[in-house]
Amino acid sequence: MEDSSDLYDEYETDNTPPWADHQHQCLEDQDNVECLRRKIKYFFMNPCEKYHARGRKPWKLVLQIIKIVLITVQLVSFGLSNQMVVTFKEENLMTFKHLFLKDYVDGSSDTYAVYRQDDVYEYIDYIIDKYGHLHNITVGNHEYEKKGSIYTPMTVCQEFYLNGSILPSNDTFEIDVKVVTECLEVSPMYHTSLQEGYPHFELHFKRMLTVKITFVLKAINLQTVRHRELPDCYDFTVIITFDNQVHSGRIKVDLENDVDINECRDWKVTGASARNINLTVLFDCLIIVTCITSFALCTRSVINGIQLQLEYTLYCRKNIGKEVPLSDKLEFLNGWYILIIVSDMLSIIGSILKIEIQTKVLTSYDICSILLGTGTMLVWIGVIRYMGYFRKYNILILTLRAAFPNVIRFICCAGIIYLSYCFCGWIVLGPYHEKFRTLNTVSECLFSLINGDDMYPTFKNMKQKSSLVWVFSRVYLYSFVSLFIYMILSLFITIITDTYDTIKQQQQSV
Amino acid sequence: MEDSSDLYDEYETDNTPPWADHQHQCLEDQDNVECLRRKIKYFFMNPCEKYHARGRKPWKLVLQIIKIVLITVQLVSFGLSNQMVVTFKEENLMTFKHLFLKDYVDGSSDTYAVYRQDDVYEYIDYIIDKYGHLHNITVGNHEYEKKGSIYTPMTVCQEFYLNGSILPSNDTFEIDVKVVTECLEVSPMYHTSLQEGYPHFELHFKRMLTVKITFVLKAINLQTVRHRELPDCYDFTVIITFDNQVHSGRIKVDLENDVDINECRDWKVTGASARNINLTVLFDCLIIVTCITSFALCTRSVINGIQLQLEYTLYCRKNIGKEVPLSDKLEFLNGWYILIIVSDMLSIIGSILKIEIQTKVLTSYDICSILLGTGTMLVWIGVIRYMGYFRKYNILILTLRAAFPNVIRFICCAGIIYLSYCFCGWIVLGPYHEKFRTLNTVSECLFSLINGDDMYPTFKNMKQKSSLVWVFSRVYLYSFVSLFIYMILSLFITIITDTYDTIKQQQQSV
Amino acid sequence: MEDSSDLYDEYETDNTPPWADHQHQCLEDQDNVECLRRKIKYFFMNPCEKYHARGRKPWKLVLQIIKIVLITVQLVSFGLSNQMVVTFKEENLMTFKHLFLKDYVDGSSDTYAVYRQDDVYEYIDYIIDKYGHLHNITVGNHEYEKKGSIYTPMTVCQEFYLNGSILPSNDTFEIDVKVVTECLEVSPMYHTSLQEGYPHFELHFKRMLTVKITFVLKAINLQTVRHRELPDCYDFTVIITFDNQVHSGRIKVDLENDVDINECRDWKVTGASARNINLTVLFDCLIIVTCITSFALCTRSVINGIQLQLEYTLYCRKNIGKEVPLSDKLEFLNGWYILIIVSDMLSIIGSILKIEIQTKVLTSYDICSILLGTGTMLVWIGVIRYMGYFRKYNILILTLRAAFPNVIRFICCAGIIYLSYCFCGWIVLGPYHEKFRTLNTVSECLFSLINGDDMYPTFKNMKQKSSLVWVFSRVYLYSFVSLFIYMILSLFITIITDTYDTIKQQQQSV
Amino acid sequence: MEDSSDLYDEYETDNTPPWADHQHQCLEDQDNVECLRRKIKYFFMNPCEKYHARGRKPWKLVLQIIKIVLITVQLVSFGLSNQMVVTFKEENLMTFKHLFLKDYVDGSSDTYAVYRQDDVYEYIDYIIDKYGHLHNITVGNHEYEKKGSIYTPMTVCQEFYLNGSILPSNDTFEIDVKVVTECLEVSPMYHTSLQEGYPHFELHFKRMLTVKITFVLKAINLQTVRHRELPDCYDFTVIITFDNQVHSGRIKVDLENDVDINECRDWKVTGASARNINLTVLFDCLIIVTCITSFALCTRSVINGIQLQLEYTLYCRKNIGKEVPLSDKLEFLNGWYILIIVSDMLSIIGSILKIEIQTKVLTSYDICSILLGTGTMLVWIGVIRYMGYFRKYNILILTLRAAFPNVIRFICCAGIIYLSYCFCGWIVLGPYHEKFRTLNTVSECLFSLINGDDMYPTFKNMKQKSSLVWVFSRVYLYSFVSLFIYMILSLFITIITDTYDTIKQQQQSV
Repeated sequence: MEDSSDLYDEYETDNTPPWADHQHQCLEDQDNVECLRRKIKYFFMNPCEKYHARGRKPWKLVLQIIKIVLITVQLVSFGLSNQMVVTFKEENLMTFKHLFLKDYVDGSSDTYAVYRQDDVYEYIDYIIDKYGHLHNITVGNHEYEKKGSIYTPMTVCQEFYLNGSILPSNDTFEIDVKVVTECLEVSPMYHTSLQEGYPHFELHFKRMLTVKITFVLKAINLQTVRHRELPDCYDFTVIITFDNQVHSGRIKVDLENDVDINECRDWKVTGASARNINLTVLFDCLIIVTCITSFALCTRSVINGIQLQLEYTLYCRKNIGKEVPLSDKLEFLNGWYILIIVSDMLSIIGSILKIEIQTKVLTSYDICSILLGTGTMLVWIGVIRYMGYFRKYNILILTLRAAFPNVIRFICCAGIIYLSYCFCGWIVLGPYHEKFRTLNTVSECLFSLINGDDMYPTFKNMKQKSSLVWVFSRVYLYSFVSLFIYMILSLFITIITDTYDTIKQQQQSV
Repeated sequence: MEDSSDLYDEYETDNTPPWADHQHQCLEDQDNVECLRRKIKYFFMNPCEKYHARGRKPWKLVLQIIKIVLITVQLVSFGLSNQMVVTFKEENLMTFKHLFLKDYVDGSSDTYAVYRQDDVYEYIDYIIDKYGHLHNITVGNHEYEKKGSIYTPMTVCQEFYLNGSILPSNDTFEIDVKVVTECLEVSPMYHTSLQEGYPHFELHFKRMLTVKITFVLKAINLQTVRHRELPDCYDFTVIITFDNQVHSGRIKVDLENDVDINECRDWKVTGASARNINLTVLFDCLIIVTCITSFALCTRSVINGIQLQLEYTLYCRKNIGKEVPLSDKLEFLNGWYILIIVSDMLSIIGSILKIEIQTKVLTSYDICSILLGTGTMLVWIGVIRYMGYFRKYNILILTLRAAFPNVIRFICCAGIIYLSYCFCGWIVLGPYHEKFRTLNTVSECLFSLINGDDMYPTFKNMKQKSSLVWVFSRVYLYSFVSLFIYMILSLFITIITDTYDTIKQQQQSV
Repeated sequence: MEDSSDLYDEYETDNTPPWADHQHQCLEDQDNVECLRRKIKYFFMNPCEKYHARGRKPWKLVLQIIKIVLITVQLVSFGLSNQMVVTFKEENLMTFKHLFLKDYVDGSSDTYAVYRQDDVYEYIDYIIDKYGHLHNITVGNHEYEKKGSIYTPMTVCQEFYLNGSILPSNDTFEIDVKVVTECLEVSPMYHTSLQEGYPHFELHFKRMLTVKITFVLKAINLQTVRHRELPDCYDFTVIITFDNQVHSGRIKVDLENDVDINECRDWKVTGASARNINLTVLFDCLIIVTCITSFALCTRSVINGIQLQLEYTLYCRKNIGKEVPLSDKLEFLNGWYILIIVSDMLSIIGSILKIEIQTKVLTSYDICSILLGTGTMLVWIGVIRYMGYFRKYNILILTLRAAFPNVIRFICCAGIIYLSYCFCGWIVLGPYHEKFRTLNTVSECLFSLINGDDMYPTFKNMKQKSSLVWVFSRVYLYSFVSLFIYMILSLFITIITDTYDTIKQQQQSV
Repeated sequence: MEDSSDLYDEYETDNTPPWADHQHQCLEDQDNVECLRRKIKYFFMNPCEKYHARGRKPWKLVLQIIKIVLITVQLVSFGLSNQMVVTFKEENLMTFKHLFLKDYVDGSSDTYAVYRQDDVYEYIDYIIDKYGHLHNITVGNHEYEKKGSIYTPMTVCQEFYLNGSILPSNDTFEIDVKVVTECLEVSPMYHTSLQEGYPHFELHFKRMLTVKITFVLKAINLQTVRHRELPDCYDFTVIITFDNQVHSGRIKVDLENDVDINECRDWKVTGASARNINLTVLFDCLIIVTCITSFALCTRSVINGIQLQLEYTLYCRKNIGKEVPLSDKLEFLNGWYILIIVSDMLSIIGSILKIEIQTKVLTSYDICSILLGTGTMLVWIGVIRYMGYFRKYNILILTLRAAFPNVIRFICCAGIIYLSYCFCGWIVLGPYHEKFRTLNTVSECLFSLINGDDMYPTFKNMKQKSSLVWVFSRVYLYSFVSLFIYMILSLFITIITDTYDTIKQQQQSV
């Protein structure tokens, strides 16, 4: 769109004064053609030129700059306050793993599993024991949940197939696929082991699917008080799962941690004043207002563009008798405005969600952060538009934009070869290499290989049971890497170089 | 082949109607030249043009699209059901390692070894003990194999040199290289240690080559029942090897797991209906039929091409008196058809194998997956052909194809330098660095280095005993990387760029 | 600046002899124009040409070469002597960790933490015990600090909120944010446990912020004696922190080590003569003198240039009546001289600091090494200037310099997109991936990804709690990498290639 | 050299028959000019053309091909037999570490150290104990060395400063730098601990430099018998060092293993025949003969070239009166011949060394493998010469060769910047990052970074004590990577592209 302004350059120096006067009479004027021409020319000017032409102050530009500042401040403050929440959640998860999982060592989550019947009972007893003595053990401020004056108990649930006799030595089995759940409730003050205290509770290893132990702990995130924010109350629902669904003799043990954040019911902070939450909300509202204004202005510009295009189409059809081609029509639709409109919408919804989160109505951090993040990203990318007003920057932006369709086109072709490699690698190498286990990881692995990931471990970890597969894996990897790095990446460079040359010649010939 | 259609472009617009009429009279027609010309022109059209020219529906195109969909569905379903088998096998392997190997820790497989005589006895006793109590230990549904009503025993076999007196302190030895095997059979109910129960069984450490402990366990893969597949019965032949072939004082211990999958003899599933296997077989048959059809059609086209080429050669020889050059002859042989024929053959054989596997006749998963995988890959790559019908996509494909011979040629030259580096690195650095131990790993390591592997660890792990070797390793690595990354990779880009320019100028000059 | 000499090339061959004679009469000469022309021409000559023209010996060049040698020697010797200090400091830190931290294992620093109340007391007791018996334990020459004849005691300090009742089960809390510190002093000879010896000292886990244990150990770095340097006396202030600021149930334990290096008060070395420190100081002084000379000479040249430029401007304004453009004015300001002046200043200050450090007046190693390092770096880069005197080398340097503005310009554009990705990644992925935790690490991670870092781990470690975030992370990473590696890196190559072609054509057309 | 043949192309087609006749009369012929012209032309022909011109069989070519085959076979067989030796040595080293180092765990070599006085005694006692019982412990065939009938004892040596009182608490020390060594001899049958058995042997921790424990074990590499090679007798000199040179409280423990390989004095192998070593020696001799022949032929050709050049120079000086420029003179010196001569010399010396090694006269494996490796590498690279005879391959080789000087020139410039970064990084970041500890590792680290090494760990591991250094490290790394990857690597591509274009135009214009 910027480059089209070149077409109107010759009018610019002399016409400016008469233009400004004629502007309002345009519609009732006889000379409609000249009027339309001027309107179109004005439409394609950049803020600077508009200011010179009609003295119109670039309000929209100023608004965008303010918006960028505000949105970035909002994002950073949201991120920083989020960080404390994340730290608290994560350190609590680590604490729970260390407190409740027997022999847990940092970093062993992936291989933490039980293989013996006795161990399963022992691990469960360990959890019950530690839960019972939690008060005297933990160095944090964890406490049991209370319903009225009674502590809510921990539940130990076993899921198993209703019925079944599995006899591998005879190659026979009989099974009722219906899954039953059997639960125990263990109060926090309970101190004996499972087999002593609940002699009727037995684990049916051959039919068992999972054992789930669930309990709720409460805590207060005190650290925020030092950053002048009010501490929140946290409910941690800890779920420890013994997973035996594969029935392979390996029971994977996993501890998960569902967090619920609430405002504390009753609190008193002395010695320092916590920052008022209303200020943050007010700031968010300011952003919403700014975004709505920007949204309205840009929508108006887009609508103006469409109207002008219709006018122009009508004129062409009537006077010249020619249909305006689609590409010319699209020229009237400024892509940057659409970018801003989208980013405004994202920011508005994101800010509303943020207010809800901060007043503890909602807890959908993820959606909010995606909206705010994407919004901010688009706003920043919008800055490039203003850089394009300088000629030397322009050539780079133009090259990228002009090369884009070719690159996309090429990615389609390369993508098909890529996909075929993915399928083939998944089906053949899947059983022999961790990275080829699912279609998704195959794609990630191959994509990473193209972009310089360590290849040697991929080569090396290929389990070498079948020499046929081994040869295949070598051919597969060597050919893939050679094809993509030597041919396809090189072609990308060629496409970009070619586009750059074209654009440069165009600019020089003008 | 696509580009050759350009040669016939001038005839296309005016001639279409008369052509269609004349078609059948061609052979008895006087005007044989014109007839041949038309046949050739028609032969080189793409499906779209053929439809416009003669109204022939693109059945072959439709068939290909159906085939792609079917084959991809087959591949994905095969992959998904394969995944459960792989998980079961792998988790069982982990279970056996944890159950039977003393002090085994996840990830220590590579360094799991014994260094003391007592330890060897202890480790063997541990295996015998755990095997004897397996019933009460395992959380899976493992059971001993039964022959009749008797459990098959575990065998403990020692291989050693028949005779030998090795006296390193005198620098003398006397050895009979013949290898003898001595075996014990230990029944599952046996509970004492090796030295107590079999006092005559002694390990001759100085002459011993290996101790192998072998036993069979059976299990049923119950998890498939939840994905509506019938559970299979598995026979795991567990082989634990104490490897002393090097006689270096280090006995490497290894647990391997041969799996045999059978249909269970007798089974009963209630509460849910397992999916019928016949449906899958039917689907595979459908694919076979589709592929045979596609195979037949493409073969016909190839044969037509060859016939036409013969006709044309004959005509040229007779009328013009000139021999047709080989490159022109090859134009008649459509490479895409050959690709499809190959992929069809692979898919057909693969699908037949798949049916055999699913009916438990065969267990050659690997060959089947390679056939199906490669078949699917080729089918997908075939899609690129249809992309080439669009001009803008075409230039990219053409560039890749045109650059191919040059790239191959260049890879030959570079390959020789590469090979010479491999040999040199292997012989000199082999004793000092893990990655240079075998010719194969040297090649993988160097190839990875070119494509962006971590270089620093390679530098760092070079054991620095001899300063001469240290200097050599530096010169070797610096020169290799500089040569290949700075000069050879750059030349690839140059070749591609050059080809692209050539193709582009050709297209513009047409 | 080198290329501007081309403008004067035509005068060079014939004029040399008359010039030399006329030189001194220049100012009183009538022919001012010719005189100015010659002065300017002479000004833009390189040392070689100056020697040929007027026989002026290239003192400045010789000085620079001497300076490079001296400064490099200084840097290397400073680095080597620094290395011993660093080794000593680091090995002591490792020793302290192994001696005072219970169950410490190499490499576990990041995960070294306590989770149980009993453990906290135990760990503190362990430190007190080991500190008390240090004499009999350590294999180094560590000793307690002595004030007079009394050993300075170890201090154990607890920081906690003044007051507070935290009741998570009721969702209520009351807290006084004021932080109080309570300290104990434990003398080295103290041997009982904390709870026995100081029954009133209690850890208030719910309110506690940190426990800090501080003590001072002294040692002598004897190894320097073998490299003919005098051993120094070290004061290690060991600070062990139990950090509970997050109140998450996890108390992170950290050992830090502040080092103070002094000259030993009283020493006697026999059997070998330690190198005199005065020699080193003398060498530093020599460097300072060299740098000052070089600084003076270059400043003179710069001033000459400015004067000449003023003269030329005046002449142009008077005689031709045209204002000299800024770019021409800047031609008179030799960038290389400015580089040398900056490097000289850095080296002078750095050397002065180094003398102070070696005479134990200051200990600001870091500032000194940054100054010396940057100084040396600039001096070396200055060497490239002399390479530019050879034509073939020149084209490469010119290309780099000419491409620089375009590259910077392009980095601006790319930087904005990069920044927007950083913000977006931080806010959305921060809670789910270690590398996206802070804005700084996001930037480092993305920058590394562009330049070939392992991508697969980044993909893989994305915690997969929310599938929305999972999809976002994939889109984010795939799009980022594709955009930056395929488009932006390619554009860099294009820019450089383009500049090279331009420069080459310029050179050929001259 | 290949391209110069283009100059003579016009003569080739018509002149071949007369030439062959005239050849011998050349010298006595009148028409000396024509004769010289023909000789020169013939000289620059390739083997194929020579065969066509004079029917000369390309013996040299055949010889080279035979040589390549022989040398590669030799290299591979040498490598394979070497591999067994390396495996045996390495597994023995691992065995010794596991047997003699207390609490040794695989992979902990780097951090294996002692920090407590008691531990030092304990570790030493452990070694003495295990050494004493070795017979009953090891599973290999290790035995003590025997001098006569007495086992050679183990020696325990302590090195310490002769005298010294080190009092860090007073900041005073007195030391005699002379180093004394005190040794114990412990016979293998000795079974009590150090402090009990040798009460006078005391470790002076404050003055101690090292404790070295040395003993010799013998073993026989039996595994070779299965590959039809005769087993060798090995003497392992095990040296365990407790290194306290830094006096930092950390004593690093290291086990090294010097190997001496001898022929066994007395042996008898039954059941299989070991391959005769004479065959291998014979094969090596064959290679030596081939290489000498090749060497002689190539030397002759080089001498011929020089003679021809002298003749030509003389002719030019006499008849045309012009001096031949150096570049034309160098044309007569065929670089490929020199490559072959060098490779022949390396192979000859290497083969002689290999014979010596195999007959146990020498043990300098390293030198031999470097000679053989480099020789083979050069021979293989020589193959590229023959590829250059095909035109399409030629352009690639020519490009590489033509670009070489420019690349070298550019590497000089880049190298200076690189070096300046190395110095600066070493001095500033050395104390804060492992990879910047020595100049050598800095260079390796930066070189690896350019070529796609993981950057994030480098960023991350920067210890963050001083924020000034932290900022510096960021600026340093970002600027380095940007400069080198974005500008300098791009310039490489540009140089190659430019050269390729030049060469291509030259070829097309011919």
